[in-house]
Order: sequence, then structure tokens, then C-alpha cells
Amino acid sequence: MFRHTDYLQFDVAPEKPDPVYARKLQELLGGAYGEMTVTMQYLMQGWNCRMPGKYKDLIMDIATEEIGHVEMIATMVARLLEGAPATESSKAAGADPVVAAVLGGMDPQQAIVSGGGAVLADSNGVPWNGRYIVASGNLLADFYANVTAEAQGRLQTARLYNMTDDPGVKNMLKFNLARDTYHQNMWLSAIEELKADGLEGTIAPNALFDEEYSEHAETLWHLSDGTMSDQGRWASGPAPDGVHENRFLADPQPLGGKGGAPAPDPKLYATYDGSLGDPASSALGTEKGLVGKVKEALDPDKP
Amino acid sequence: MFRHTDYLQFDVAPEKPDPVYARKLQELLGGAYGEMTVTMQYLMQGWNCRMPGKYKDLIMDIATEEIGHVEMIATMVARLLEGAPATESSKAAGADPVVAAVLGGMDPQQAIVSGGGAVLADSNGVPWNGRYIVASGNLLADFYANVTAEAQGRLQTARLYNMTDDPGVKNMLKFNLARDTYHQNMWLSAIEELKADGLEGTIAPNALFDEEYSEHAETLWHLSDGTMSDQGRWASGPAPDGVHENRFLADPQPLGGKGGAPAPDPKLYATYDGSLGDPASSALGTEKGLVGKVKEALDPDKP
Amino acid sequence: MFRHTDYLQFDVAPEKPDPVYARKLQELLGGAYGEMTVTMQYLMQGWNCRMPGKYKDLIMDIATEEIGHVEMIATMVARLLEGAPATESSKAAGADPVVAAVLGGMDPQQAIVSGGGAVLADSNGVPWNGRYIVASGNLLADFYANVTAEAQGRLQTARLYNMTDDPGVKNMLKFNLARDTYHQNMWLSAIEELKADGLEGTIAPNALFDEEYSEHAETLWHLSDGTMSDQGRWASGPAPDGVHENRFLADPQPLGGKGGAPAPDPKLYATYDGSLGDPASSALGTEKGLVGKVKEALDPDKP
Amino acid sequence: MFRHTDYLQFDVAPEKPDPVYARKLQELLGGAYGEMTVTMQYLMQGWNCRMPGKYKDLIMDIATEEIGHVEMIATMVARLLEGAPATESSKAAGADPVVAAVLGGMDPQQAIVSGGGAVLADSNGVPWNGRYIVASGNLLADFYANVTAEAQGRLQTARLYNMTDDPGVKNMLKFNLARDTYHQNMWLSAIEELKADGLEGTIAPNALFDEEYSEHAETLWHLSDGTMSDQGRWASGPAPDGVHENRFLADPQPLGGKGGAPAPDPKLYATYDGSLGDPASSALGTEKGLVGKVKEALDPDKP
Amino acid sequence: MFRHTDYLQFDVAPEKPDPVYARKLQELLGGAYGEMTVTMQYLMQGWNCRMPGKYKDLIMDIATEEIGHVEMIATMVARLLEGAPATESSKAAGADPVVAAVLGGMDPQQAIVSGGGAVLADSNGVPWNGRYIVASGNLLADFYANVTAEAQGRLQTARLYNMTDDPGVKNMLKFNLARDTYHQNMWLSAIEELKADGLEGTIAPNALFDEEYSEHAETLWHLSDGTMSDQGRWASGPAPDGVHENRFLADPQPLGGKGGAPAPDPKLYATYDGSLGDPASSALGTEKGLVGKVKEALDPDKP
Amino acid sequence: MFRHTDYLQFDVAPEKPDPVYARKLQELLGGAYGEMTVTMQYLMQGWNCRMPGKYKDLIMDIATEEIGHVEMIATMVARLLEGAPATESSKAAGADPVVAAVLGGMDPQQAIVSGGGAVLADSNGVPWNGRYIVASGNLLADFYANVTAEAQGRLQTARLYNMTDDPGVKNMLKFNLARDTYHQNMWLSAIEELKADGLEGTIAPNALFDEEYSEHAETLWHLSDGTMSDQGRWASGPAPDGVHENRFLADPQPLGGKGGAPAPDPKLYATYDGSLGDPASSALGTEKGLVGKVKEALDPDKP
Repeated sequence: MFRHTDYLQFDVAPEKPDPVYARKLQELLGGAYGEMTVTMQYLMQGWNCRMPGKYKDLIMDIATEEIGHVEMIATMVARLLEGAPATESSKAAGADPVVAAVLGGMDPQQAIVSGGGAVLADSNGVPWNGRYIVASGNLLADFYANVTAEAQGRLQTARLYNMTDDPGVKNMLKFNLARDTYHQNMWLSAIEELKADGLEGTIAPNALFDEEYSEHAETLWHLSDGTMSDQGRWASGPAPDGVHENRFLADPQPLGGKGGAPAPDPKLYATYDGSLGDPASSALGTEKGLVGKVKEALDPDKP
Repeated sequence: MFRHTDYLQFDVAPEKPDPVYARKLQELLGGAYGEMTVTMQYLMQGWNCRMPGKYKDLIMDIATEEIGHVEMIATMVARLLEGAPATESSKAAGADPVVAAVLGGMDPQQAIVSGGGAVLADSNGVPWNGRYIVASGNLLADFYANVTAEAQGRLQTARLYNMTDDPGVKNMLKFNLARDTYHQNMWLSAIEELKADGLEGTIAPNALFDEEYSEHAETLWHLSDGTMSDQGRWASGPAPDGVHENRFLADPQPLGGKGGAPAPDPKLYATYDGSLGDPASSALGTEKGLVGKVKEALDPDKP
Repeated sequence: MFRHTDYLQFDVAPEKPDPVYARKLQELLGGAYGEMTVTMQYLMQGWNCRMPGKYKDLIMDIATEEIGHVEMIATMVARLLEGAPATESSKAAGADPVVAAVLGGMDPQQAIVSGGGAVLADSNGVPWNGRYIVASGNLLADFYANVTAEAQGRLQTARLYNMTDDPGVKNMLKFNLARDTYHQNMWLSAIEELKADGLEGTIAPNALFDEEYSEHAETLWHLSDGTMSDQGRWASGPAPDGVHENRFLADPQPLGGKGGAPAPDPKLYATYDGSLGDPASSALGTEKGLVGKVKEALDPDKP
Repeated sequence: MFRHTDYLQFDVAPEKPDPVYARKLQELLGGAYGEMTVTMQYLMQGWNCRMPGKYKDLIMDIATEEIGHVEMIATMVARLLEGAPATESSKAAGADPVVAAVLGGMDPQQAIVSGGGAVLADSNGVPWNGRYIVASGNLLADFYANVTAEAQGRLQTARLYNMTDDPGVKNMLKFNLARDTYHQNMWLSAIEELKADGLEGTIAPNALFDEEYSEHAETLWHLSDGTMSDQGRWASGPAPDGVHENRFLADPQPLGGKGGAPAPDPKLYATYDGSLGDPASSALGTEKGLVGKVKEALDPDKP
Repeated sequence: MFRHTDYLQFDVAPEKPDPVYARKLQELLGGAYGEMTVTMQYLMQGWNCRMPGKYKDLIMDIATEEIGHVEMIATMVARLLEGAPATESSKAAGADPVVAAVLGGMDPQQAIVSGGGAVLADSNGVPWNGRYIVASGNLLADFYANVTAEAQGRLQTARLYNMTDDPGVKNMLKFNLARDTYHQNMWLSAIEELKADGLEGTIAPNALFDEEYSEHAETLWHLSDGTMSDQGRWASGPAPDGVHENRFLADPQPLGGKGGAPAPDPKLYATYDGSLGDPASSALGTEKGLVGKVKEALDPDKP
Repeated sequence: MFRHTDYLQFDVAPEKPDPVYARKLQELLGGAYGEMTVTMQYLMQGWNCRMPGKYKDLIMDIATEEIGHVEMIATMVARLLEGAPATESSKAAGADPVVAAVLGGMDPQQAIVSGGGAVLADSNGVPWNGRYIVASGNLLADFYANVTAEAQGRLQTARLYNMTDDPGVKNMLKFNLARDTYHQNMWLSAIEELKADGLEGTIAPNALFDEEYSEHAETLWHLSDGTMSDQGRWASGPAPDGVHENRFLADPQPLGGKGGAPAPDPKLYATYDGSLGDPASSALGTEKGLVGKVKEALDPDKP
């Protein structure tokens, strides 16, 4: 269960309106690596965590913080739109190139749909969606995803920092940049902790190493004609997992047979000349297949 | 420019049809962490890479390999659907519970739309889309994303490995598991190489550390009531970047003022009682704002 | 079955082209509360209505009108784009700031994809989709949705009315505003009629009141620190349904136990330390579960 | 800023696993009218509210409660999946029709992607997205939307209540049903309060009544051949807003001219026979249009 | 403007309920090539048509027919769901494998969301969206798209025809198949008519043939290792447009230089080693670029 | 399996940056008829082709070429963004109307997300998705789709050709236009070849002509009031398939009964007055239905 205070985690006080920037800032709210994504990614990871204790508690601390970041960005957007020339705009645009320019760079839905507020979308107006998040239950795989989210998030924040000279906006972004720095360090720390606790290794998931074809777990297939891909540590020397040896396969050849789809079911009307023979009999739907066996078992006439 | 051979990178030979599994395998084709994602993520990263040389060559090698993985999975799906009871199915379902069950678990579009082939969608039939990929131009941030993609990909492959007992399917997955192991090691190696080359640090991007509020770059805000989040290395000790010190903020208080949106533009018809005063005058769209200044410059009557 | 006349329901005659406004008007065509939404929402409600008679006839009257509104907006968009500087635009933009500004505010797909016509998308270019509509079969719940659609629609129309000074556009919008006024009154009338006919009550659906926990059907949980939420009629006095009494819960406490996901299936590779014990045995997929019982019934060796 | 407790708002304790039901329950989590929608709709409305005080405080109380409902449903899904036969499933399905049936009804991503947890999607696996919500700044229009959301939500909950006989699931749903009852009453109360406070009327927005064509604000256009649509109070008598009179237009005729798009810009290659004459000259992009005037003003050679 | 009759274009009378088939039939309603697509594609083409007369009239005739097809399929779905075991389903599924199987194959939203009616989505539950349609203004290009839509539509209908043995369903599909046959012939006739009228040629658009590089307008680039692609009429002989000669390029070589992105703007933090030199100076945003020239023109101090 | 060379298929060398055009060019990369679509459409068709030989080899040749076109457009976008004023933009926009205009027309994600590179989206920023493609297995239906894709693609390219005067961009587009010309001729040739080989006819699929209602396979239903739709060859004379005769139905009447949904399941809470009688008993889920029969067969007490 959650509780809320009206006080914001940090100051959100732009010096003046800037509707073009308000559109750009939507990326941090509803973009693939915006605050909505980390909020829901961490919440779902916390709720999907299978161990009570420090990892789950950590995830829920951060998840709860991130809802407050959505709040901060949404508030900043509304304040940047204050006094934006949203109405009577066509006339104004006809008279004033700057107004026209500004209107051209605005998100029209911030005016028409939200009445001067943020929308739950990115800087191109595409709505945020639930496929942006991952919560697999495997903490190593998910913490890699969290490092990624914080790294892309800090990168986008840094770019946006350079796109404004409003001291109030920059003030908030200095806080966001710092949080993204800590959160990267934090998730990297958590990966170390998982290994130290013996819960995970370097490769996710920590399983099936005896099943996989180990001769294919070490080689870089050289399939593009650039000549320098053999010159990094990915092409030779010990691998980060401490088990494998990185190797370079200079002239890789296909290991499989020819591709191709099988003879088609005639009732699906694929174009077909019979060259692959008749379609295979259905293993599932016929008398001789599995169904036949079940039917036999079901047969009331069977003695 | 690309070239293609009909020979597959590895064997794709299921022993028997399995339409229910064919649906599940769609996750590896068109899911958020399927082969389409890594293909397009690596291609776009390669084309967006700003340095000719080993990094770009590495990315293009792997990107080119991944197109071949899309080919393998699409071929496997078509072969798993061979002889699947796609037609006359309602009658069959009425008579046979197993057929009905199998049909219930199938992807109907693999029959109706693709005629017994794969679709470019995930295991719930949701189409793959371009927001699944990231190619930011910052190699550290993107390589973190690549480790994530390979980790989630190997995890999903491992789960799918346990959901079949077809030796032919398992044979292919043993190859895929191995490639995902190498690719995790490979991108982790590439991260080490970036640091060794002095191109990036631990935190992405390697910039604005002097601008961000450093006092907020080290603290875990304890906002959920779990009691153990102070017990990991994220809460104390040196941070992975070698610069910061992780710290725990046991009872964090909001640092910002109260939230709230400003007085609204009356022509947008937000419900309003006047309690915030009149709306601010438009800084951009009025005579006294920027537009006024430009108008003045444009004034043909001006001497 | 439908029939069509080329004559429009109302005049659609802009005085001059305005490509920036043509983009904004897309919101009324393909936005979440645009004409496509009410068209398809009312059609699907009419086809899903379970009572021949006045309600179904009403819904089909309005649904049929709304297709004509889609026609009007699409026609208006094409006419607003007449003579828009869609071609040779980069050169023009280089020379003329106003042209550049206008082009910046245009929807590029109206030129590139539709050749000067409307697209089936909103003002940010996001395509209309079928999840925008609701047709539940419950007329009370759906009429609430219809009031909402007409209210948001009139609100957006009113905002757009203030964003143009073209008399021809304003002329059409004066008609649309009026229809939205009537349609709000109309759906509110229909809600009264449903109640007068004894078909529905105030709360949807009119069922399960004896099953739900009545002590939780009256209280406002005070979970945010604003101090005034107890001062409206939602916090005390009789509820609109004439049955319940609104009440305020000043310091609500969680009623449930601790959250948390159960011990994981090991073959799904969630990170796990065993602290929740072994995973529960499968109730469905094992010999002792339901499957076992069915197997037994199926057993051909059973006497 | 938000805070979280691990204790759930209400009990979430299913008696036994039920993976088919876990899929259906996704509708209440990530469907168009699920808990994610009300959470984000209310949060965005609260942050977009232009009046400090009782309305904003009310919205934030409920918004904060709803995050806890997302938590409850996500937890319930994970617990319903406990011990679900997610692995080795193809073999099991071959042997057991019930297992096959159950697997057919499961959401495959709950196993493959989330490892036995919920996904942020609806019961068909379509991800939740930000276009499901509305926060227009106009409280009347938005409270209508909120009544709708709670009505559809309670309707879906009631249907799901009938689809299970698990006492633990029913226990939770009895709480959810009650909350949806209160929330409908609550938003209806808030609409009354808005009117009593003189902030809004019956029609949203409370504006432009003098501008709209009043003769079109009262009539039902009879455009479908059902014969009974004139028999409800929407066709005669006073309208709910207390201002208009509902009327029936038995044989409505089009009021506009013929539809049709104008002569096309030749560089856009629309098929055209010249029958509409030459395309209009561009009002914006030519010497004689607006641009010309600006150019003139800009002309450095102008005296 | 449109009018509606309650009588359906053709009989829609299934003999018995079939909820699994009801889900499959959604493909013809809300799939990429379902009735919603042809309805909206033809309506938008008609409204975007630039010539009053036979083409526009034809398009509007067919568009109006197609709305009635959406009506037929939606009605069929509701009737196929009659008596479907939507409620108390988990208990039933436990007892009855056939029920469980059927429920597994149902669309859960048809019960939970639509209350036994159709949804505006395809057979996997993915909502219909506006990007499925095309209305470019070029009738040749659009009529090719219309042939495609009717061909894919008839193909899917034919597959679905084989998936049922319900005489009532088959009866309706025999009508739909026939209409799809006529509509293919019709659009192919319309393409002939366009050419006969001298409005379009074979290649769309009928323009820029003198501008394009004619040596690249005739050759098949052989980039895959299949050996037989030179054996069709696409590889030699006259092309269908009567102008070009088809040719085969057996060993094509790249004609362009090396790919690669330019030196990055440092404020965007792409990883960069300086090897491409300094980033180019901005042609647009600097004193020496276009902006500089405009600034100069604007300079109020300029004499 | 694929291989890659760094050399591009054709020159990609814009003369100068043009960020507004870079946004428009996204339509050719990630639009519904852009290069991603033809790449994935042809790849999936090739992998789904049921005949080894000339058709499959042709498809794979072209599919492989198209990946190289995605590469060309992505490279062009990055080069057009070189030196674009992406940073410090708000300040610049304040000072310079041209800069503001240009920024208004840019895709903000090309800067914020991709760091000066292309995104996998269209010119409105909507991500490319897998529903844009079709690969049905029926080559006639799919080749119609391929003609459509190349026709729309060439049309959009031609429009974009007129929107720039950059000789380097025009140079590349002259190549693309030529390829689109050949590809239209090529797929039209392939349709002729399919017919010459006796594999397909004119109507897709080449089946069920004896089943469909032939009297409905020839008539244009005149449902809109335009008076000229009987004046084309679609309304009289032999049809293109050489079998049917086109005819005109001047005053078509509905052939079906009244529409309407059946009596509802009471547990789904549709509004209902009983006028359609009681809901039909469930044919599937009851003792007397199919389930009953299966139960009987399963009855262990049965002798």
C-alpha cells in the first residue's frame, strides 16, 4: 500500500514558460527509458521478487522513489506550459514567425487533450506502453536491465540538460543526473552482491551450461567485412565469466542444412507445385496420431 | 550491403509437429527480447557508430549473425506447424478434447494469416515494434543494453528449453543458448575494452559530474518499510565507479516545495476558482514577450 | 446495411488553407475522443445491444450520424491542406522563416502518405486503434462512457475553436459544438430513462451488492497528505445511489498481510535462496492433482 | 513524493493455483479499464488540477489507493501461478488433455517472460498504454470519465467474480467490488459538488453556448430505420441541463454541400483529370502570400 | 452523410454456438485485412479522391457496402457466443476437459470486456489500428492496395471456411467469398479503366521516369545464393510497363562508398575517439550559416 | 545465413545537413511502406515459400537487397543530422526564428534518443511494427501485396524527391526511384509467371469457386448516391478473370434478416428486459451438450 505527500522530492521551478522544451521533456516522462518505465519496471520486479529481504527491500525503495520522479516531470511540464500561446494560435502564427515556430515545435495534445498539462507519451507523442518494462524474476538479468535503464536515462537527461538555459530546469536536472549516477552505481553494486551471495554468476541464467554446445559459446563469427573485429578482448583471452575463452572465427561457414518451409496443408492454399511431396500426415489430428490413442481410450464400446 | 546463403547457421530439424510450441517460440522471434530486437538493435547501433574500427566491426559481425537467427526461428516455427490440424478444426475440436486443447493453445494467425508460417509477433500475437531497440550512439550505454538483451534472451531460451522434449528443437536451442552465453561475455568484454581504451567510464555518459548535485549521487532513499535495504553494498562502501561512496538515507524527507499546476489559460477551460490568481501573461506570444521584440525588428515603418 | 449520400451533414468550407491547423484537427478525427471513436463505439454498442427497441434504435441513429462526422472532418482536413507548401519545401524553408515554421507544425504524413489528405491518426500522428472504444453490453456503464466521450469531445472542440480565426472552420465547429451539447444531454436523458424503466440503477452493474463487503463500499481512504479531502459530499452524507452513506477514513491502515510472490518453479530460473521453502507441488499437472484423476478415469486397464 | 508499506491494502490469498484465471485477471491489471488505468488517470488528473484544495486532495487520495490495487492484482496473479505447469509442458500436454487445455488457456508470457509473474498487459497480452487515460484539466469532463472507469471496472470485476469458485479469490474481489461501488458514488458526489460550488454545469465545458448553433443543440437525427428512437426522454421534454428542450428530427436532410477534396498539388501525384481546375495558388508559400509579405519586410535592400 | 437499415446485407445465422470459432472470426473483423480495414481504406480513399465522377462514385459504393460487412461479422460473433460457457468457468474447466479446452481457445475479452460480443481486434486480441489503411490520392497505387486487401481477405475467408462445419456460418462465408471474388475483379477492372482513360500507366506514380537512373530500373540484383532466380520473366524480356527490359545482374557489386555516421556533436555524448576529425560546423545554427544571414537581415542596427 | 560489406549499395552523400528533411525521410525507413516493411515482408515470404526454386530464389534476392536499403536510409538520416542544432536549442530558438522553425520540424528523438541517428519509426515518430507486413504463403496474394508496397514506396519517394533540392539526396533518390520502378515491373512479371506456370489464376486463392454464391460474385451494389459508378468496366462486360461478367445492381436491397445480438448470459450483466426470452441453454458447457456426452464416456461407473 502507498501513501503520498504533496511535497515534491526536489524543486521543480522553471524560470519561464518554454512549450517547445515541455514537449522534449515528455521523453523523460513517457519514453522507453523515462520515469514511467523505471517506476513500473521496479514495482513489477519488487512484486515478482521471490526472496523477502534486502533485494526486495532495495527494489521497493527505488520503485517508490521513481513514482515521485514521474510526479516531478509531470509538474515541470505543466509549469513550462504556463502562458504558452495555445489559443488563437493560427492567427498569431500568421503574423509572427517566432510564434509559428514555437507552435510548430509544441506537442499539440498538451494543449488540446491535456489543457496545458503533460500527456503519458514520449517526445513524439507516442503513448507509453507496458512492453517497455521487464521483470523476469531472475535478478541478475533484471539488474542488467536496470543498469541499462539508468544509463540511457542519464544519457537522455544529459542531452536535455544541454538543450535549455533555464536555471530552474537545470536545477532539477542536476538532481536527476545525480540520482541516475547513484542508481547506476547501486544496480552495479547489487550485481556484485548477487555474485558474492552465491545467488547468481556472470551469465544469466546460471544454468544449462552442461547442456549448451560449449564449442559455440566462445566464438565471434566474422560475418561482416570490417577487418578489425578481431582486435578487442572479445576475440581472444579469458571471458568475463572466468570460465570461457574468447575466440575469433575468421571465415565461418553455415553449420545447418538448407532452409525452407515444409509441404503445405492444401486447405491453407499456399502456392505449391508438389515438389516437396505430399504434406506430412497430421501427427496430432488424425486417427493414427495422439488423438487416435485418446479416442481409443474414450471408446465406450471398448471392452 | 548484404548477401545471403540458403544454408542455415545451424540445424533446424524438429522431430515432429508441435503447434502449441510453435506459438511459444514466437517469443524468441518477435518478443521484446527476441531475435528481431537484437538484429535491429545491433544494425542500428552499427550504422550509428561514430568510430570506424574494431567496435563498429564487432557490432556489424554480430548484427549480421542475428539476421540469420531470425531466419532459424522462422524456419523452426514453419516446421513445427507441419501437419498441424489447422483446418476443419471446429468439428475436430468437438469430437476430440486433445485436438481442442491443442487448438486452444495455438496462435490462430499462424494458420489464418500466415498459412502455416511464423508471424512477426510475440507469443501473445502482439507485433514486434521499433521501440524495443536502442541505439543511442553512446557505446557504454548501448553495450549495457546489449548485455541485457542477451541475458533476457538466454533466460527465455532456457525456459523454452524446459518446455519441450523434442530432440530436434532441443538441438537448436543448445546452439542458441551457447551463442547467448558468448554474446553476454562478448559485450561484457567490450565494456572492459571501452574503459581500457579510455573512451568511457563506469557511469554513462562520462560527463556532467561537476554539474550534477554530488550530495544526491550517493544515497539510497529509504521510502518503503522493508527493513533490510541497508544491508547490501549499495548502502555503504565504495561505489563501482571508484569515485562515489554509497550511503543510506534512513528517513528521507522531501526537498522540494508543494506540487501543483499553475493557473490555467481560460481558453483551455480547465476547472478553476481563481485561487492561484490570474494566469501568467504569455512570455512568448505577446507584444511584451519575445514576439514583440521580433515584431519590432520586422516593423517596416521603423526608421 | 448502410447507404450514403455525397451531401455532407453540414457545411465544410474553410476560407483559406491552414496546414498547421489541419494537423491539430486530426485530434477530432483519430484521437482517443475523436469522431472515429464515437462512430465505432456506438456502432459496436448498437450491434451488441440485447434489446430490440428504443435504446438500440437510439444508438443506431447516433452511430450513423457519427460516420458522417468522420466524413466532415476528413473533408475539412483535405480542404485546409489545399495549396499547402508541401513540395520543394526544404528550399523554401531555407529562404522563408514563416514557411519553415509552418512546415515544422505540419503533419508530414498528410503530405508524404496521404498526398494532401487526412490520415487515420491523432494530432501527434499516432494511429487510431480499437481499444479506444467500449461496448460492454451493460447500457448504464456504456452510457456513462458515452457522456464522457461527448464531454471530452466538446472540450477538445472548444479548445480548437479558440485556435483558429477562419470563419469557415468556426462555422463548422459551431455545429459540432451544438451536436456535442445535445449528445451529452441525450445520453444523460438515456441514463434517466434506464432508471425510470427499472432496467438499471445508479451503480453499474446492478448486481452483487449482497456479495461485496459493504463496510468497504462507503469510505474514502485518506492516503495523501492534503488536508481538505474530507470537505466534500463524497466524505459524508447520503451517496447518490440512495443506499450508501459516504464516510471518511482519516487514518486508514492496511487490512491485508504482507505482499510477496511465492517460491518459484526452479525451471523458470528466478533468483531464489530457498527461504520460502520448496515450491508448492503442482495442483494441476501431477499425478495427485486434477490430471491424475482424469488419467485414472481414462485408464484403459481400469476394470 | 510517495512512501510504501509491504502490507497489502486487503488480503490476497487464493486457495489454489489457477493459471487460466491468472490470465483472465490480467484484464483488471493492464486492460483499458484496469487498475493501471485508474492509477495513472487519477495521478495525472491530480497533478494537472488547477485548484489546491478539496478536489485535488480527493483525487490524490484515490490515486494513491489505486497504486495499491495494482499491487494487489499483480500479487494475486503471481500466487495463482504458483505451481502452474509451466515447464516440460509439451510432453505433459501430449499425455493429458486437461493439462493441454489449461496450457492452452494460459498466457505464455507469464511463464516465458515474467517467470511466473504478472505482465503489464491485458487478458489478451496486449500491453497497457498511456492513451487509456484522460486528464483534461476540466474536472467535470474528467469526473464523467472517472465514473465510467469505475463502472466498467466494477462490471468486469463482477464478470470475473462469476468465473471462479476459489474462496480466496472471491474474498479479494468482494473488496474490489465494494471499492468500485464507493468510487462510483464518490465521483458522482464530486460532480454534484462541482455544480453546487458553481464551478461547472451539466455540459462540459461550461462555455461557448452563445457561439454554438443552438438549433442543432436539441435534435435527434433519425438516420437508422428503427422505429422507436422517438420514444425516450431524449426525444422530447426538458434536457438534463435545464436549458435545452430535447426534440426529434424524423426525416433529417443533409445541410451541407457535396463533399470532395480540392484540386491536388501536382507534385504529390494524385490521380487527376483537371476537372476541378488548376490547384489554388499557395496562400502561404508564394510571393503573393504571407511569405511574400514577410520577405518584403525582411528585404535588406528595402529603403 | 449515411443512413442505416436494421436489415443485414446477407443472412447471419449460425446453427449453434462456437466460441472458439468466434475468436478466429475476429480476424475478419479487426485484422490487418479484415472488414474494418477495407471499410476505412475505401472511405478515406473516396474522401481523398480528387475527381468527382465514376471513380469516386465506385469507391463510395464499395466503402458503404463494407460498413455493412463489419456489421455482419460483429453480429455473427455475438451469435456464435450465445450460450458460451463464459461464467463459472474455472470450476467447469476443472471438471470437464472439453470445456477447459474450449475456454483455452476463447478470446477472454469477448466475455470480460464485451459481455458476449465482438471486440474491435484481431484473432489474437490486438486492436485494429489506422495504420492498416492506405489512401494516397494516387488511384493506381491505391487500387493495387485494394486488390491486395481483397485477395488477402478472400484467402483468410477461405481458410476460415475450412475451419467450421456449421452450415449457417458456411452460408454467410459463401456470400463473403463471392463478394471478395467480385471485388478483386472490380479493382482489376478499375486499373484497366485508369489506363484506358490515360490517367495512369503501369508504374505508380506515372512520373519522374526521366529523373530516375534508368540503368538501375531494369536489373535483378542476385544477392542470395539460390541458383534459379534468373529463370523467370522478371530476369529477361520486356517488362509489363512496355518500356523497360528486364535483366539479370549475376554478380552485383556495391556502387556506393563505405557507410558510416559522421563525427558527432559532443553535447550528445556519442562515444568518439576523434578519428573522423571535429564535427562539421553547423550549417544552420551558427553565425555563418543561414541563421546568420537572417540575423543580419533582422539587425535593427543595420543602416 | 547472411554476410555484410561496409560498402553501401549506392552513394549516400548529402551536400549539407537538413534536420527537417531527416525527419521526413524516416517515412522511407520506418513507415508502413518504408524499407523495413519490404525487407521483413520479403524475408518472411521467402522463408514461408513452399517451393524451392525460382520464386523462392527471386524473393530472397530482393529481400537481401532491401536490408541494404534500410542501411542506406539510416546512413542518410545520420548524415543529414550532422551539425544539426540539437543542443542549447531553446536559447537559440529564442533568438532566431529560423532555428526555432527548424527545431519545430525536427524529430526530437533523433537527438534525445539516438544522439543524431535514425530511429526505427516513421515521419511522425510512430515505431515500425510487424503488422505492416504480409507473408501468407499464397504467392499470388503476396505478389499483389508486393506490387502495392513498391507502388506506394515509389510514390512516397517521388513526393520526397520534390521536397529537397540537395543534389546528394536527389542522387540517392534517383537510384531508389529506379529500383522501385523495376520492382513493380518485377512483381508484375512474377504474377504473369505464376499464371503461365499454372500455379495460380487471377483471383486469390484459386479455390472454392464452386462453393461461393456465384450470383453475388459479379455485381456492384450501388449504395452511395453518386450517379456515375455504372460507367466503368467494373459495371459491365467480362471480368479480368475471364470467367465472370461484371454487372451493376442499381437498387440493391438487404438480403438478410434483421440484425441483433441474442439474449444475454445473465452472469455477464448486459442490460436486458427479457424480450428475447431466456438465454439459450449452453450447447457446450452443460450436461445435455457436448460436455455431457464426454462426461458420460468418462464415467468410471459406466459398465
